[in-house]
Amino acid sequence: MTIIVVNFKTYAQATGERAVKLAKICEKVAKEKKIDIMVAVQNADLFHVSSEVSIPVFAEHIDPVKYGANTGKDLPEALVENGATGVLINHSEDQDELKDIEGSIKRAKDIGLKTIVCAPSAKSSEAIAAFGPDFVAVEPPELIGGDISVSKAQPGLISETVKLVHKVDGKIPVLCGAGIKDHEDVRIAVKLGCEGILIASGVTKAEDPEKALLDLTRGFG
Amino acid sequence: MTIIVVNFKTYAQATGERAVKLAKICEKVAKEKKIDIMVAVQNADLFHVSSEVSIPVFAEHIDPVKYGANTGKDLPEALVENGATGVLINHSEDQDELKDIEGSIKRAKDIGLKTIVCAPSAKSSEAIAAFGPDFVAVEPPELIGGDISVSKAQPGLISETVKLVHKVDGKIPVLCGAGIKDHEDVRIAVKLGCEGILIASGVTKAEDPEKALLDLTRGFG
Amino acid sequence: MTIIVVNFKTYAQATGERAVKLAKICEKVAKEKKIDIMVAVQNADLFHVSSEVSIPVFAEHIDPVKYGANTGKDLPEALVENGATGVLINHSEDQDELKDIEGSIKRAKDIGLKTIVCAPSAKSSEAIAAFGPDFVAVEPPELIGGDISVSKAQPGLISETVKLVHKVDGKIPVLCGAGIKDHEDVRIAVKLGCEGILIASGVTKAEDPEKALLDLTRGFG
Amino acid sequence: MTIIVVNFKTYAQATGERAVKLAKICEKVAKEKKIDIMVAVQNADLFHVSSEVSIPVFAEHIDPVKYGANTGKDLPEALVENGATGVLINHSEDQDELKDIEGSIKRAKDIGLKTIVCAPSAKSSEAIAAFGPDFVAVEPPELIGGDISVSKAQPGLISETVKLVHKVDGKIPVLCGAGIKDHEDVRIAVKLGCEGILIASGVTKAEDPEKALLDLTRGFG
Repeated sequence: MTIIVVNFKTYAQATGERAVKLAKICEKVAKEKKIDIMVAVQNADLFHVSSEVSIPVFAEHIDPVKYGANTGKDLPEALVENGATGVLINHSEDQDELKDIEGSIKRAKDIGLKTIVCAPSAKSSEAIAAFGPDFVAVEPPELIGGDISVSKAQPGLISETVKLVHKVDGKIPVLCGAGIKDHEDVRIAVKLGCEGILIASGVTKAEDPEKALLDLTRGFG
Repeated sequence: MTIIVVNFKTYAQATGERAVKLAKICEKVAKEKKIDIMVAVQNADLFHVSSEVSIPVFAEHIDPVKYGANTGKDLPEALVENGATGVLINHSEDQDELKDIEGSIKRAKDIGLKTIVCAPSAKSSEAIAAFGPDFVAVEPPELIGGDISVSKAQPGLISETVKLVHKVDGKIPVLCGAGIKDHEDVRIAVKLGCEGILIASGVTKAEDPEKALLDLTRGFG
Repeated sequence: MTIIVVNFKTYAQATGERAVKLAKICEKVAKEKKIDIMVAVQNADLFHVSSEVSIPVFAEHIDPVKYGANTGKDLPEALVENGATGVLINHSEDQDELKDIEGSIKRAKDIGLKTIVCAPSAKSSEAIAAFGPDFVAVEPPELIGGDISVSKAQPGLISETVKLVHKVDGKIPVLCGAGIKDHEDVRIAVKLGCEGILIASGVTKAEDPEKALLDLTRGFG
Repeated sequence: MTIIVVNFKTYAQATGERAVKLAKICEKVAKEKKIDIMVAVQNADLFHVSSEVSIPVFAEHIDPVKYGANTGKDLPEALVENGATGVLINHSEDQDELKDIEGSIKRAKDIGLKTIVCAPSAKSSEAIAAFGPDFVAVEPPELIGGDISVSKAQPGLISETVKLVHKVDGKIPVLCGAGIKDHEDVRIAVKLGCEGILIASGVTKAEDPEKALLDLTRGFG
């Protein structure tokens, strides 16, 4: 498997109309390079973005609630109706209680949403694997948005994460969720056992996002 | 002023396609009766609903964040780009820290979003008035979704709230945010000083929402 | 191993002076029956209770912070200095983010505090085992404080939890954390693989706590 | 009124045995200078500290709960039983939902605990005044623990806060809650309408806390 998930966060370059435009660039590269590229967008942008592209669109947040009186919550059914094919859970900027991680994965599964669950360490990746998510993305908080490459600076963390996750369930793919700058980082991450990457500013804030994406795809070669 | 705000929450009857349908019913009654009806919808439903109706569409939640790295948060700019004209803040099912209430009202004002800020008591309504919201909605938690009418059961709470809010700022309209069942409740709320109502299940779960809305409008006569 | 942990919560019968009195009863039964009885008390009661008894006294909450500017937080070092020998983590009434569970266990270990980490399900027990706590206590939220016995009503949950926890680490003892009413429940829990129980109202609110404890100890016979 | 409240936070110099020692220094200066000095300590340190000094001892946190099943919470009754005479609420490092601020003030009043409620801005100070706390402490987050003096850098914020709080209730004393370095800052704060200060690192981390306190008292002269 070779996957690039681009997390749009709330970046100016990836909100509203610009989210649609950036998603189209992702779609173009995905088709050209025959590689799986998915985008994770703000929940308010889900409908608009998913109406305009055919690549998978993820929500950035889900709440493990059901139909009813939950003002302000992100109902799984609403995400699906507005075009989501999956959801990010427990991102370092949006951390959840253990109980809600379990509940969110369960609700997502029941309704057919794919789950990418983030973890800040190898052991928490192992913990999350117990709930059977579709992907685990390991992202040491200190590397997010920084200039250090996780695959170069902490290669042991990546391989340890892959080992622990696969001890629980050998079929859960691990994504490298922080510290990816270029195709060389991707290449190392793949070599260490990752099946893809979760990336944000490296693409959304790139002067030329298409060029940045094309460079990253070279790492899977 | 005579305002009805219908809070769609995460009700099955008010999510996705059914949110669009219900918003159109609200729009129809608003035009017929020449009364201000606004809808508050799940953030994921904002774009779709606001594309289909011309009445004001509110978001159910906002985060006081700015462009940047805030995975999973509801960026004010994203709400605006997806058609929101205002936002609910501090609903009893979605309570905020004091600091975030102040921050959310400020961010909303800066970007042109109207604010309806909920409060569980007369004194907390007074507290919120200090931040200059566009509306204060008083909603005693124990009455939400229940069968008791606030305007009948707790008329003193309503008039005390209006008094305290207007002591801070005489121009902030107060909405009756819970316990409204029919036009008679509306009539009493208006008589006690409210300029409108915030209602949810009374409309969204009504067998005939159009009929329920039409009945409520009679209270403003 | 045969352990009874009595969670004092914030019960009137287990606060302040009455916490000291109840802890002494626990100590008396522990000595008489030569069984490990530990008490978990409110953090404000730690110093007073631990000054008066020699059985292990647990704190009910810990924050994974270090010396510094953390107003209102429960610093591990402060718990130790005031007599704590361990701490409850992630109780169903006091749930934590995944990251804080990992951080709290790590901080506790570093400073020599024992950890009892609660989990609402078999899978979350497995998840928690990844962090190497001293004990896992499984407590299905729906049974807490109720009249149903977990060991009778959900025997499968207990044995499944023991199996999953021991798959991760065979040396982590599992406590039955809810639904224990009498020695018969204890007997079944032990038979299903538990090495002890975590109990609250069954002791704290008993007309005669000493008698209630003595009855429970019969289950370990 | 002339009040100094020393917030011990979780500083190494103000935890456990050292909390007791520091509280005794505060007591000594209070007696010598005939000035009100109060200490706010970690809840786990309440019993020990309050057993050793006769000056008022505040808790750093309170939860608006009642006797019952609230594992890990700080029950008002437990704080009182362990020697607290008051409590800090909504400190910038420990922020509360609006509803809980109202609830905590009410619970504290009912049980006889004094309340010092912190606010990050002039308007939020006004908001808090609506609930009738015993003190409002204004502490702009950006100044906490820093080297800038609020009374010099933001004198307008102090006088505006005093004005807005007294508009709601002329009898609520305002404390200057951040940016106090020496007696000159105290003098200016008092001149701007404050009746005291809330200080932390300026005393707890001083090489000679007694000397630091003595210096501060000169500002009230």
